[in-house]
Amino acid sequence: MGTDTTPGRPLGVAAVGYAFMGKAHSNAWRNVGAFFDVPTFSQQVLVGRDGAAVKAAAHRYGWAEAATDWQEVIRRDDIDIVDICAPGWLHAEIAVAALEAGKHVLVEKPLANTLAESEAMVAAAAAARARGVQSMVGFNYRRVPALALARELIAEGRLGTIRQVRASYLQDWLADAEAPMSWRLRKETAGSGALGDIASHAIDQIQHLTGAAATAVSGRLHTFVTERTGPDGPEAVTVDDAAWATLSLGSGAVGSVEVSRIASGRKNALRLEVYGSHGSLAFDLENPNELQFYDGSVPGRTAGSTRILTTEADHPYAAAWWPPGHVIGWEHTFTHQIRDFLNHIAAGTAPSPSFEEGLQVQRVLAAIEESAASNSVTVPLG
Amino acid sequence: MGTDTTPGRPLGVAAVGYAFMGKAHSNAWRNVGAFFDVPTFSQQVLVGRDGAAVKAAAHRYGWAEAATDWQEVIRRDDIDIVDICAPGWLHAEIAVAALEAGKHVLVEKPLANTLAESEAMVAAAAAARARGVQSMVGFNYRRVPALALARELIAEGRLGTIRQVRASYLQDWLADAEAPMSWRLRKETAGSGALGDIASHAIDQIQHLTGAAATAVSGRLHTFVTERTGPDGPEAVTVDDAAWATLSLGSGAVGSVEVSRIASGRKNALRLEVYGSHGSLAFDLENPNELQFYDGSVPGRTAGSTRILTTEADHPYAAAWWPPGHVIGWEHTFTHQIRDFLNHIAAGTAPSPSFEEGLQVQRVLAAIEESAASNSVTVPLG
Amino acid sequence: MGTDTTPGRPLGVAAVGYAFMGKAHSNAWRNVGAFFDVPTFSQQVLVGRDGAAVKAAAHRYGWAEAATDWQEVIRRDDIDIVDICAPGWLHAEIAVAALEAGKHVLVEKPLANTLAESEAMVAAAAAARARGVQSMVGFNYRRVPALALARELIAEGRLGTIRQVRASYLQDWLADAEAPMSWRLRKETAGSGALGDIASHAIDQIQHLTGAAATAVSGRLHTFVTERTGPDGPEAVTVDDAAWATLSLGSGAVGSVEVSRIASGRKNALRLEVYGSHGSLAFDLENPNELQFYDGSVPGRTAGSTRILTTEADHPYAAAWWPPGHVIGWEHTFTHQIRDFLNHIAAGTAPSPSFEEGLQVQRVLAAIEESAASNSVTVPLG
Amino acid sequence: MGTDTTPGRPLGVAAVGYAFMGKAHSNAWRNVGAFFDVPTFSQQVLVGRDGAAVKAAAHRYGWAEAATDWQEVIRRDDIDIVDICAPGWLHAEIAVAALEAGKHVLVEKPLANTLAESEAMVAAAAAARARGVQSMVGFNYRRVPALALARELIAEGRLGTIRQVRASYLQDWLADAEAPMSWRLRKETAGSGALGDIASHAIDQIQHLTGAAATAVSGRLHTFVTERTGPDGPEAVTVDDAAWATLSLGSGAVGSVEVSRIASGRKNALRLEVYGSHGSLAFDLENPNELQFYDGSVPGRTAGSTRILTTEADHPYAAAWWPPGHVIGWEHTFTHQIRDFLNHIAAGTAPSPSFEEGLQVQRVLAAIEESAASNSVTVPLG
Repeated sequence: MGTDTTPGRPLGVAAVGYAFMGKAHSNAWRNVGAFFDVPTFSQQVLVGRDGAAVKAAAHRYGWAEAATDWQEVIRRDDIDIVDICAPGWLHAEIAVAALEAGKHVLVEKPLANTLAESEAMVAAAAAARARGVQSMVGFNYRRVPALALARELIAEGRLGTIRQVRASYLQDWLADAEAPMSWRLRKETAGSGALGDIASHAIDQIQHLTGAAATAVSGRLHTFVTERTGPDGPEAVTVDDAAWATLSLGSGAVGSVEVSRIASGRKNALRLEVYGSHGSLAFDLENPNELQFYDGSVPGRTAGSTRILTTEADHPYAAAWWPPGHVIGWEHTFTHQIRDFLNHIAAGTAPSPSFEEGLQVQRVLAAIEESAASNSVTVPLG
Repeated sequence: MGTDTTPGRPLGVAAVGYAFMGKAHSNAWRNVGAFFDVPTFSQQVLVGRDGAAVKAAAHRYGWAEAATDWQEVIRRDDIDIVDICAPGWLHAEIAVAALEAGKHVLVEKPLANTLAESEAMVAAAAAARARGVQSMVGFNYRRVPALALARELIAEGRLGTIRQVRASYLQDWLADAEAPMSWRLRKETAGSGALGDIASHAIDQIQHLTGAAATAVSGRLHTFVTERTGPDGPEAVTVDDAAWATLSLGSGAVGSVEVSRIASGRKNALRLEVYGSHGSLAFDLENPNELQFYDGSVPGRTAGSTRILTTEADHPYAAAWWPPGHVIGWEHTFTHQIRDFLNHIAAGTAPSPSFEEGLQVQRVLAAIEESAASNSVTVPLG
Repeated sequence: MGTDTTPGRPLGVAAVGYAFMGKAHSNAWRNVGAFFDVPTFSQQVLVGRDGAAVKAAAHRYGWAEAATDWQEVIRRDDIDIVDICAPGWLHAEIAVAALEAGKHVLVEKPLANTLAESEAMVAAAAAARARGVQSMVGFNYRRVPALALARELIAEGRLGTIRQVRASYLQDWLADAEAPMSWRLRKETAGSGALGDIASHAIDQIQHLTGAAATAVSGRLHTFVTERTGPDGPEAVTVDDAAWATLSLGSGAVGSVEVSRIASGRKNALRLEVYGSHGSLAFDLENPNELQFYDGSVPGRTAGSTRILTTEADHPYAAAWWPPGHVIGWEHTFTHQIRDFLNHIAAGTAPSPSFEEGLQVQRVLAAIEESAASNSVTVPLG
Repeated sequence: MGTDTTPGRPLGVAAVGYAFMGKAHSNAWRNVGAFFDVPTFSQQVLVGRDGAAVKAAAHRYGWAEAATDWQEVIRRDDIDIVDICAPGWLHAEIAVAALEAGKHVLVEKPLANTLAESEAMVAAAAAARARGVQSMVGFNYRRVPALALARELIAEGRLGTIRQVRASYLQDWLADAEAPMSWRLRKETAGSGALGDIASHAIDQIQHLTGAAATAVSGRLHTFVTERTGPDGPEAVTVDDAAWATLSLGSGAVGSVEVSRIASGRKNALRLEVYGSHGSLAFDLENPNELQFYDGSVPGRTAGSTRILTTEADHPYAAAWWPPGHVIGWEHTFTHQIRDFLNHIAAGTAPSPSFEEGLQVQRVLAAIEESAASNSVTVPLG
């Protein structure tokens, strides 16, 4: 067990999982080098449980090999990076083992299904980091160009002091009461429902955009369709369909969160609004190449919300792509994520969001659950 | 004291107050008869404290006379209707006196600054109603054609079962920390801040659209600019700049409310989103002639949010105005309100929203304040 | 015949016509004084052919009297202003007579159905103007606040040199092939179809916004539904359903026009786009309280189209109305028109658009017809 | 010279050109197999004049080899497909040679710079087709899912009879008068300006969406910035900055076209509006995952423009990508194009748009130029 340290050898990459997230990550690995200057790497092996299926997926998605045993893969000398796209309950085991094996690790969000697992991962990441081994959690929406621009504008003070942040993430794939029962709707396998799945993105954005951490939360969870039918007949849904929260931020700002999987007509509507003393921003992931910016320094006669089409060469990540006005797709949030991950590995610096940041989001989610279980009473965060 | 009962005599109208709301109500009285069939009435007398100013306003706004003593006016035989546009702390005294004098009463929202006053008004209204004297509270946004249409579509079941309702009302006239201190920012004169002023509209809409009353709330209030300077120097702001709440509705739906006076770039953004099992609606008061309707019964290939321009002859109130596509302004929410008020008076039926409905909204607001004062813990509504 | 010159006497106003335009103009007369400082006037007499109907309309729309003989009315000493809302074929006769009688005249667009009539009106207007009698043609969309702002921004050079202007006016009330035959669809009564009715607005805007007159045009007309059924059975439609044109402007800019009455789903979509060397503007009359402004002087990173909500106190006409974000309706383009007309009368200055401007638009329309009749070959304007 | 006919051998692909279009096509080749079921192929060789540059590009974009001599490449037995992304003046020579060598050919639009060249290409394509060798011209916007859906809805009669089609394509990369002279602005190298470059797309869309060919046109061209400075100093611009046209279509519909490279603030705004007797559609390429559909069969009360987010599984091409609401980028118009091209090759059927279709668009462009040179007089198309 170790890593081949031949100078100039391409970084060997293994990915675990080939479902929705595996497809998206593979796409990013296959394309990142065509658009960005990154260290040389080899899209080496795709890992999955079903041998035939993973072989077909590896071929389709551009991996040189397929494998079924992730433990064996992380022992390989030619593998330097492990990208974990497996379900949440497997994150901790694979990530800790890979880090201990000296592999850089990228893991999909949420970091893990439990705080205990997340804490173990953070410990492993810290130890690995001391040895020059990097890790990152996949809050990919930080790398939507419009949201990266939003963060820059906020950090530069273009909005003044941030006071109020509104985040919602609305989908409708469970609006139909006839949609079937699945592992995603059982607490023991999924951890939570809309909360962990999509509120995690919303909360990461609130904290990342403002640069401020939640210090207290009040929350609420609700399941509108309490029973669904699966292969084994009707069964209770034990996770939330929707969640609400308010967050006190360390900066003095207040954030609000509302997420839903039953919001008929909303498909992937992560919406963010940031209100500062001198301006505001708005964003909708269904229209990801646009950022709305209200610049309070413009005199009232021509002030208003400006639709910034984030395809100009001076927008984050945009110079690598196409001419102005030629938009990019949702999937390239992952491409940008891998670009930054690779460059950090090459530079020997720690990428962000770190496992610590992932854990902190998990703690906010846990506090929301705690508040929800106590009539929404405010729960402080340590 | 009494009312002239000569048959066919035009209804005599008196209005109290000529500031923002007085201007808006006067405009409605001046125009309602040009567009709608209503009982004959006379825009008789405008009442205010400053004799010269009220005389000028009466002339400008189309009133036959001006007066300074509302008590004298409500004793006049030729006055049948009293429209109260004075500040909230005067509502109860004038309304109760006018009702007792046998005058029909329209009062601006919020019903009153305190629950005690509101309850007294409700008692007076109930007693008057028994005598055929009508009363109404001015939640004028119920009569935006788009929102009246929204209510119809919901009531007809076009959205299926309503599950999630989102209401926000965002303005920015206090975003500037240099905006001066005023009576609106003192608890003793204003009662509350954004909560009473604009969350009242949001809450009325949630309940009116869904036809369901709040049974429990969790709330939060926040003042971002805690001190402002007035004519007498710096002074503490004692009302909220922003408020948040979640509402359990009797129907099983969950509502959320967020309001703000410091949301830079939002001018009058009352936004409503209603999600049902089979469709959804969205509305923004900055664009009041449009309703967005997602009809879940349309097959997926052509489904989507439909922008309904509510200027067709079969839209509520619209036939009276202009041809399709010729939009109307904010002010005609009041015109529609007075049209309905007058027709109820003529029919001898009770208009809605009644004082009881106004009181119920006040109770929800009070519960939000109570929750906010107790770390957002859920407060049941009796 | 003459005018009572008693100092301080209110200006007496007569309006001719009480259909769609009469209703809109009456509304403006009834309301202008409540919002703007204008000379004192009396909404005196409404004129129409049907005695009973005009009497009812006068009562409903706020006129003191009704009359059926416009010739008699323009001889009255107490009438100072004649507002002509009658059909186009009556414009010339009434306007010339009224001007000769010393009455200020406001006439709806288009100025007249024929160039000969328009020229007679211009001659009468010029002669009257020399005697201090004013006249104006009703291109009311110049007084949409957003379009008045557009003109200001262009005149101030905020867009640089104007190069390309796009105007379209799309409606759909004739999309249905079953819509009945009417006088509006016969050349002898209507003059033309979409061309005179709505392209006139588009062309006036192009010239007014840019401050440049058309010097040559290429045009095309088309009738998609060539026969419709009226009370007397099927009949040929002899006017255009749609029209297209390009305009060379004296400034070197190029304008394009496309108008239609069969554009399914467009209700009142007068859309304007102005492209300059350093910025651009866009407007849609279905959303008349907004102007889109692209300010080319903003650095690319935050440049984009800004949605200006034209309800701020420093927007044209807006201070008179409601607080920011409280929009006004289509009808107040007429209110603004009358405000400016009255103030010019009081000041003894000539209002704009003058009859000469109205005639010039008629000449552009005639040149488009001429081009359309000659395979779209370019027709110069004198 | 020939083609290796070993059964099951992957199709060998060569691409000529690695600038903007070469990058876009390479991206499509690199990704098509990960999303769609296509015949097996090998992304074999990238051809360019500069040996070092093409080698770097080949590596970056996923090609196995680089080469500098296209003539040599098309003689290779292992090459089955030639994808021509070189400038327009090279299209004819390469395409004809490749077709004669038995290679399937995909060529970027416009087909060629002259009609003579285009006709030669059509002849070669027809001859090759008879031998089972396929060819296609790159009007990639036919394969935007929203536009493919538009065509389906029109073909199904959902809009009724199509009457009026509006197409504009607005960009602003030449708005700045300081933008430098280049080969694209000289008639001898570029053929034309906005006309050939972007009006070609607009015209192809009008004809493709409606299924009707232009039978006559009136056109106009204009150059707003007549001189620009290049490396050799100031020089006359000899192509158009903007173009306008109206098109008579064989079906009886009328189309209009307006294109510009100086439309400040528009980046890539290909906008299409199609008006039928019973509905309409609208599209904007700056927001390519949306189609606006006005369904005239919906009763007026809920009728309006529906924003269809074309990411549902039953939308064209969409099932291959991501879940609903997860949008794709501009570049995948090319991915879809190659998917269809490959499948036609495998099936032995002729793909569309054919060279004949490309030539027909060139003829429309030529007629517009002819009309523009003759004062916009209508020019019939044979």
